[in-house]
Amino acid sequence: MTSRNERAEALRALLNPHDPAIAMAAHNPLAAKLAAEAGFAAIWGSGFELSASYAVPDASILPMGTHLEMIRSMGEVQDTPIVADIDTGFGNAVNVAYAVPRYAAAGVAAVVLEDKTFPKDSSLRPGGRQELVPAGEFQGKIEAARAHGGMLVIARTEALIAGQGEAEALRRGAAYAEAGADAVLIHSKSKSPEEILSFCRAWDGRVPLVLVPTSYPQLSFKDVAALGKVGLVICGNHAIRAAVAAMRDTFRRIREEGGIAAVEGRIASVAEIFALQGDDALRGLERDFLR
Amino acid sequence: MTSRNERAEALRALLNPHDPAIAMAAHNPLAAKLAAEAGFAAIWGSGFELSASYAVPDASILPMGTHLEMIRSMGEVQDTPIVADIDTGFGNAVNVAYAVPRYAAAGVAAVVLEDKTFPKDSSLRPGGRQELVPAGEFQGKIEAARAHGGMLVIARTEALIAGQGEAEALRRGAAYAEAGADAVLIHSKSKSPEEILSFCRAWDGRVPLVLVPTSYPQLSFKDVAALGKVGLVICGNHAIRAAVAAMRDTFRRIREEGGIAAVEGRIASVAEIFALQGDDALRGLERDFLR
Amino acid sequence: MTSRNERAEALRALLNPHDPAIAMAAHNPLAAKLAAEAGFAAIWGSGFELSASYAVPDASILPMGTHLEMIRSMGEVQDTPIVADIDTGFGNAVNVAYAVPRYAAAGVAAVVLEDKTFPKDSSLRPGGRQELVPAGEFQGKIEAARAHGGMLVIARTEALIAGQGEAEALRRGAAYAEAGADAVLIHSKSKSPEEILSFCRAWDGRVPLVLVPTSYPQLSFKDVAALGKVGLVICGNHAIRAAVAAMRDTFRRIREEGGIAAVEGRIASVAEIFALQGDDALRGLERDFLR
Amino acid sequence: MTSRNERAEALRALLNPHDPAIAMAAHNPLAAKLAAEAGFAAIWGSGFELSASYAVPDASILPMGTHLEMIRSMGEVQDTPIVADIDTGFGNAVNVAYAVPRYAAAGVAAVVLEDKTFPKDSSLRPGGRQELVPAGEFQGKIEAARAHGGMLVIARTEALIAGQGEAEALRRGAAYAEAGADAVLIHSKSKSPEEILSFCRAWDGRVPLVLVPTSYPQLSFKDVAALGKVGLVICGNHAIRAAVAAMRDTFRRIREEGGIAAVEGRIASVAEIFALQGDDALRGLERDFLR
Repeated sequence: MTSRNERAEALRALLNPHDPAIAMAAHNPLAAKLAAEAGFAAIWGSGFELSASYAVPDASILPMGTHLEMIRSMGEVQDTPIVADIDTGFGNAVNVAYAVPRYAAAGVAAVVLEDKTFPKDSSLRPGGRQELVPAGEFQGKIEAARAHGGMLVIARTEALIAGQGEAEALRRGAAYAEAGADAVLIHSKSKSPEEILSFCRAWDGRVPLVLVPTSYPQLSFKDVAALGKVGLVICGNHAIRAAVAAMRDTFRRIREEGGIAAVEGRIASVAEIFALQGDDALRGLERDFLR
Repeated sequence: MTSRNERAEALRALLNPHDPAIAMAAHNPLAAKLAAEAGFAAIWGSGFELSASYAVPDASILPMGTHLEMIRSMGEVQDTPIVADIDTGFGNAVNVAYAVPRYAAAGVAAVVLEDKTFPKDSSLRPGGRQELVPAGEFQGKIEAARAHGGMLVIARTEALIAGQGEAEALRRGAAYAEAGADAVLIHSKSKSPEEILSFCRAWDGRVPLVLVPTSYPQLSFKDVAALGKVGLVICGNHAIRAAVAAMRDTFRRIREEGGIAAVEGRIASVAEIFALQGDDALRGLERDFLR
Repeated sequence: MTSRNERAEALRALLNPHDPAIAMAAHNPLAAKLAAEAGFAAIWGSGFELSASYAVPDASILPMGTHLEMIRSMGEVQDTPIVADIDTGFGNAVNVAYAVPRYAAAGVAAVVLEDKTFPKDSSLRPGGRQELVPAGEFQGKIEAARAHGGMLVIARTEALIAGQGEAEALRRGAAYAEAGADAVLIHSKSKSPEEILSFCRAWDGRVPLVLVPTSYPQLSFKDVAALGKVGLVICGNHAIRAAVAAMRDTFRRIREEGGIAAVEGRIASVAEIFALQGDDALRGLERDFLR
Repeated sequence: MTSRNERAEALRALLNPHDPAIAMAAHNPLAAKLAAEAGFAAIWGSGFELSASYAVPDASILPMGTHLEMIRSMGEVQDTPIVADIDTGFGNAVNVAYAVPRYAAAGVAAVVLEDKTFPKDSSLRPGGRQELVPAGEFQGKIEAARAHGGMLVIARTEALIAGQGEAEALRRGAAYAEAGADAVLIHSKSKSPEEILSFCRAWDGRVPLVLVPTSYPQLSFKDVAALGKVGLVICGNHAIRAAVAAMRDTFRRIREEGGIAAVEGRIASVAEIFALQGDDALRGLERDFLR
C-alpha cells in the first residue's frame, strides 16, 4: 500500500486542467471496484449515493461512522484514489479537525468540504435549505482540514446553488484557495452549462476547479478540458442511478414472468460476482495458507 | 411498528405450500425498498449479496456486525418481513444463542441457519469447501436459535451441496424439523431442477420447504407451487447481479462517450432517487417540526 | 423482554417527586450492569462518560453511531431502564426525527434532549460555548421526538448554564412541558445548590424535574425528595470518575512495585469478572445446546 | 504519525530479554491513554477486557468489528504501541489473511494469534473448552498473518492451558518460530510460576517469549528479566479489574449514603476527566480554527 502522502500527491498530479481526471461515484466497495476496473481516475465517495443506498435523505442523517466505514472498505479492495465527500465536516471547524484525520487513516486521497450550514440539505433538491456559513468561518474549516489530514482539501462552494450569484461564488472560491484549498468545487443546479461556463471563464486559475455536471449533462469531458481550468470532473450519482434502474427492471420482470429464468441473460452471472469478490486472491490464500 | 412475534407470525402465514411466498435478495436498504415496492413478500438479507457489495468472498469474512447493521437498516425504511441469512450462526450453538437475539432486536421475521462448518464457503463456488457439522450438533444450534429469538428459524441443509445425497438430505431435514425448525431450506447446485424436484417429492411435508433456484432458474414459481411442499422461494442474488451489470454498462458508456449525456435516459433520474430516499416524509417533517 | 411502551411507562412510574428515582451514569455495558446490581433505578447513557471513555471531548465529536451502539449493548445485558443522553439530537428537528426511532429500537426508556446549538459543548467546561436555540425551535425538536419514539422525552434546558437566569429557565421549562416534554432537566454549574433550589421552588410542578448535581454534590437525595418537585436525580459521571482514579492508582502501583502482586487484593478478582460476563448463563447455554 | 513499519520496529526494539517491556491491558481509549501516561511500554488490546466491558464472555462472542474499532480508537488518542489480541484470528488462515491487514491499517504494532480452535474459550475459565488446532494448521495462520500485515506476529500457544505438557508447548513454540512468529506467548493457569519458569529455562531463545502472569502474580518483572528469555510481560486484565472494584465501591457508597458528596474525594475530579479528553488540544483547535 502506498503511504497517505503518496496517494494525495498521485491525485494532485492527475488534476490537470488541460486533461481533467474523471471520478465516478460509489456507494459501496463493489461500485468502487467496478469504477476502478472501468478506468476512472478517482472514486467519488459520495454522501448522496451512500444516503440513497440506505434510503434516507442526503441531509446529515446518516451518521459519520457509516460513511467513514464505507469509505475505508472501498480502499480495502481497490487502489484508485478516493475523494471523500464529507459534506460540511459534521459541524464546525473543531468537528472538521477531529473528522479529517480519521478519513486520512481510512486511506483517502482528498476530502471535499462544502460551505453550507450543518445539517446540510441536498444541493439539487427542489426547495431545499441552502444556507451558507460566512466565508471566514469556512476558511477556518479549510485550515483545520489542512492541518490535520495530509490529504488534498477540496473546498466546495454552494454560492450558485444558494442563488448568491457568480461574483459571490468567485469571491468565495478565491478566499478558499487563499485559505489553502488545493482545488475549488463549484456546483450548479442550472439545467444549462452556461452558469458554470461563465464561472470557469472568470476563474483566475490559481487552483484547479472541480465540476459535478449532474444538472447539465450535455457538457462533455472534452468541452471541460477545453476550458483549461478544471482538474476534476465528478460523475456524482451514476452508480446508484444505474443500479436502481436495473434492480427495478429485474424485480418487475421476475414478478411478471413468475420466475427467474427470463432475467438470466440480462444480469451479471454468478461467476462474475465471484470474480469481483476476489475469488482468485481467495484461491491463492487457500493454496498458500490452509493446511 | 408491529411487534416481533407479529412479524414472525405474519411471515409464517405466508409460507403456503400451495402458493409459496417469493423473497428477493437485498444488499442494502435501497434494494430492500425496491423489492418491497415491486411486491415481493419478503426480503432476503443475503450474506452473499452483502459480501459481494463489499467485494469480499462470502466465506465468513465480513464481520457479523456489518451484516447485522445492514439488516437493521433495511427494516428501518420498509415493512416487508426480512429473512436474515446468518450463515452458520457465527460459530457454535453458543454463538448462535448470542447472535440470534440481536437479529430479533433488529426486527427480522426469520433467520436461516446452515449446517456447514464455520467458516463457511459459498455453496455455489466451484471447488469450495463444503463440510457439514454432525446433524445432532446442528440440532443444538436450531434449539439455541429457537430459545433465544422469537422469530422463525429456517434450517438450511447443504447435504446435496456437499454431495451427500438425497437420503442424507432427507434425514437431516427431518432431524432439523424435529429440533424445532419452522421450515427447511434445501439447497442444490445442480443445473437441472431434477435433484430438487426429487427431494421435494420425497419430503414428508411436516414443515414447509424453502428453495433458492439460482442454479436451476428454469423452475418457475408456478412449477414450485404445483409441488405443494415449498412455502418460500428465495431469489438469492438478483439485486446485486442486476446492479453489477448496469453499473458496468453505465461506466463503460460514460468512458467511451466522454460524458454523461448518453446514459441519462438509461438510468434512474435524480428525482426518482429523491423519492426513494423518502423525500415526501422529509417534507412532512420539515413542515411539522422545523421552526 | 418488555415492550418499548412498557419500559417507558415503568420509568414514568418511577419519576415520583416525593421519592425521586436515582440514575447512575454508564459508559459501557459493564458499568450499566454494575449500576443495576447496585440498585439504581435507571441507567444514564451519558455522552460525557462515553466521550471520556474514548478520550475525546464531549462536544459532538463522537459519531452518533458509537453512542447508539453502546446504548443498545447496555440494554442487551441488563434490564434497568436506560435514559439516553442524545445531546442536541444531532442537528435540527429533522435529525431528531430520524435519530429518536433508532434509540427507541435500541430499547431505551427515555431520551434527554438539550436546548443548546449543535455542535454542543460540555456544560461544566470552563469557558465553553453555551449557546441556546430559540425556545420555539426547541419545541419543534421535542415534538419531533415525541412523534417518533414511544419513549419518554426529557427536555433539558441549559438556560442557567448559559447565564440567562432563572426567569428564562422557567420560561423555557414551561414551554418545553407545553410542547409535550415528560420531564424537564434543569442543569446548573453553580458550586452551591442555591441556584437549583430556587428554580425548583419556583417551578409549578406541571411535569417532574430532573437534576444532575455534579457541581453541588452536597445536596443529598433526601434534600431533593423534600422539594417535592424532582422525579429523577442523575449521578452524571461517577462511573468513569471512579474508574479513572482506580486505573491510575493501579497502574502506578504496578509500575512502582515492578509486578502485579501488590494490587491483587485491591482490584476485582478474575472470578468476579467471569461472573459479570454472565458465566452462569454461558454454562447454561453450553449444557443445553452444545453437542 | 509514524508509519506502520516504524511502529512495528519500535516495538521489536523493546522486546529485550534482559529488560522486558511491560504492557498494560486496555478496554477503551481512556484506559489506553492512562496506561501510556503511567509509562507502560505497550498497550494490550485485550479481548478479555473488551468482552468484559460489554459484559459478555470472552468466547468469540463480540464481533470482530467491535474489537477492531476499539483498537483503532485507542491508537487515535495516544502513541504507545498497541499489541492487538486477535484470539484465533476469527476462523481459519483465510480469515486471518483478511483480518490482519485491517488491524495493520488500524495502526497496531503487533497481533497475538492463539492456537485454539474457533470459537475460543477464555484460558483461565474453570472447566472451559481448551482445544488446540494442529501445529501445522497454526503455522499456516502465522504465515498468513506475516504475509498480510507488516506488523509483528506473536504466536500464543495454549498447550499448557490445554494440559498437553511442556514438551508439546516447546514443540509448538519452536514450530511457530520456524513459521515466522516474531515472539512466542506461553500461557499458564498454574497458581505457581514453576510451570512457566520451567518452560522459560527450556526455551532455546530463538525468539523472545511473552508472559501473561495473571495466575502467578508473585513473579515480579525483575524475576522475569533475570530469566533472560522474555521480551514482553503483559498485565492482562488489570485495567478492567481496577475499574470494576472502584465502580462497585463508588456505587455502593452513593446508595448507602444517599448522595454523591461522600465519594467526591475518592474519585477523579471532573477537571481531570476534561484533561484526559484532550481539553488542551481542543482549546488550541478553537483558538486556531473557530471564527
